[in-house]
Amino acid sequence: MAVYTEVSDEELSAFLETYDIGTVLSYKGIAEGVENTNYFLHTTKGSYILTLYEKRVREADLPFFLGLMQHLAQKGLNCPLPVNNRRGESLGRVAGRPAVIITFLEGIAVRRPTAQHCGALGGALAKLHLAGRDFDGHRPNALSLEAWAPLFAQAEAQADTVSQGLAERTHRELASLGASWPRGLPSGIIHADLFTDNVFFIGSEVSGLIDFYFACTDAFAYDVAICLNAWCFEIDGSFNLTKGRAMLAGYQAVRRLDADEIEALPVLCRGSAMRFMLTRLVDWLNVPPGALVKPKDPLEYDRKLNFHRHVKHAREYGLEA
Amino acid sequence: MAVYTEVSDEELSAFLETYDIGTVLSYKGIAEGVENTNYFLHTTKGSYILTLYEKRVREADLPFFLGLMQHLAQKGLNCPLPVNNRRGESLGRVAGRPAVIITFLEGIAVRRPTAQHCGALGGALAKLHLAGRDFDGHRPNALSLEAWAPLFAQAEAQADTVSQGLAERTHRELASLGASWPRGLPSGIIHADLFTDNVFFIGSEVSGLIDFYFACTDAFAYDVAICLNAWCFEIDGSFNLTKGRAMLAGYQAVRRLDADEIEALPVLCRGSAMRFMLTRLVDWLNVPPGALVKPKDPLEYDRKLNFHRHVKHAREYGLEA
Repeated sequence: MAVYTEVSDEELSAFLETYDIGTVLSYKGIAEGVENTNYFLHTTKGSYILTLYEKRVREADLPFFLGLMQHLAQKGLNCPLPVNNRRGESLGRVAGRPAVIITFLEGIAVRRPTAQHCGALGGALAKLHLAGRDFDGHRPNALSLEAWAPLFAQAEAQADTVSQGLAERTHRELASLGASWPRGLPSGIIHADLFTDNVFFIGSEVSGLIDFYFACTDAFAYDVAICLNAWCFEIDGSFNLTKGRAMLAGYQAVRRLDADEIEALPVLCRGSAMRFMLTRLVDWLNVPPGALVKPKDPLEYDRKLNFHRHVKHAREYGLEA
Repeated sequence: MAVYTEVSDEELSAFLETYDIGTVLSYKGIAEGVENTNYFLHTTKGSYILTLYEKRVREADLPFFLGLMQHLAQKGLNCPLPVNNRRGESLGRVAGRPAVIITFLEGIAVRRPTAQHCGALGGALAKLHLAGRDFDGHRPNALSLEAWAPLFAQAEAQADTVSQGLAERTHRELASLGASWPRGLPSGIIHADLFTDNVFFIGSEVSGLIDFYFACTDAFAYDVAICLNAWCFEIDGSFNLTKGRAMLAGYQAVRRLDADEIEALPVLCRGSAMRFMLTRLVDWLNVPPGALVKPKDPLEYDRKLNFHRHVKHAREYGLEA
């Protein structure tokens, strides 16, 4: 949560004049989004979000992300629609940053999802996978298997200061993942970061998916694994099988997992836990002085990884045979 | 800018059920308000702000602030209206904090006001002073003359680490202010913190005044002095006489300053600069580790104070004779 870049009145006015979205009635910096600066914008024509991309998003990737959102919105998925300016472009610049205006989505991000939320999320995830099939953009997953060893190299020397034995555990696990990582699974556009803050609900229905800035081309089942990790564990670290069952059933009602995907699910869950453990660990060890964002606990994902090591079959996540 | 207190879904739902404001469609933490946590709340009935009061606001003062806002809104002033819950009370509790729901005001806080903005602000300030005359609440100004020596005592030993000679300058000035501080000026409800972030505009019209949590009973002209300091200096420290003239003319068009108030304006400007220099200095020297809020520069107000030392007459602020 943070506003990294302050926008002056003059800059904002000049930027908004390049759009046909009416007169601004109010705007507020919103305490959301770890990667970017977001302003809520209310105009005589509606509600929007102004996003300024901070350094962590590669500018060269923005056309992919924006094109994807436009594609998915056209397919009827509830995701933010980048608004074109008067020149027909969605990407502009404010305060020295690449910036876009996207439509505002109603809904509430639940912090403690119920099984019902998990079921709805499973369905929305499958719809996203189907809606992305005919998108012609392509972006390799920059945080998959090949990225993990270099990430770990940044943190290895200090890993045991975070948890005794973490370096050794991670080494062993990286070797095991390298040997068993599945190839050739059904692939396409995945969200790759569908945590609870990126899913809006109205009641128990999904009203929107946001934050596509990790979206990439990878195995659909890897996205399922990310969601199992993000949605189906309790705060005490236990896996809630009822939630897992609801999510997987919700997913399968829209898109059935094939036999290879089902078999790969435990190793994909381990891999996805490794990915978030590692990025969190690097952030944890590199908190800049005066940081506005509290780093997330890498050990949460170390514990999840350990859970998955003992899983033999996707049934243990709640998959109905 | 900060969200100090995270509110869980369950707590929020339970709290909102005590109100008759419809179903929540979205809520977002907003990066505004140095003292409190604010959420933007959109429901089927309208837009609101949920405010959670953090430690700096004394809970015993809340009925005064809320009663004042209700009084001013009734008088037609554009200020947030605290919404009563089903039991007819405006003050509740969320996440262990006193909390209220207030109506949302449209408008934009200008960061670099023009003379036109200053003129409109002067008029709005005078209307506030008039609207508050028949409010029967009373609250002494806890940050006036008597508070400055104890505040300075907290910072004196380290003052010269911030600026060479600051301790000595402040000592001399406090003695001078004590000897010349005006008594018996026309008094009533003042806002006491009407910085640019607390005033919303649509175009060049004032659409709302917010953040009444320093409001108190004190000399009206002291509020004028606070606004001269907050609105009429340029970033380079120079006083913009055109802005001062516009503000004072805007004020006088609604409420005329009397001869005593005019005579007292230079010393009131010095006093108000002292008040903000001192609270900023104490904050500057006491930034807690991991603070989310960047402290404001006390020396900005030390420089303003120095400007006022050379002012002989309110004409130098732009007052038309």
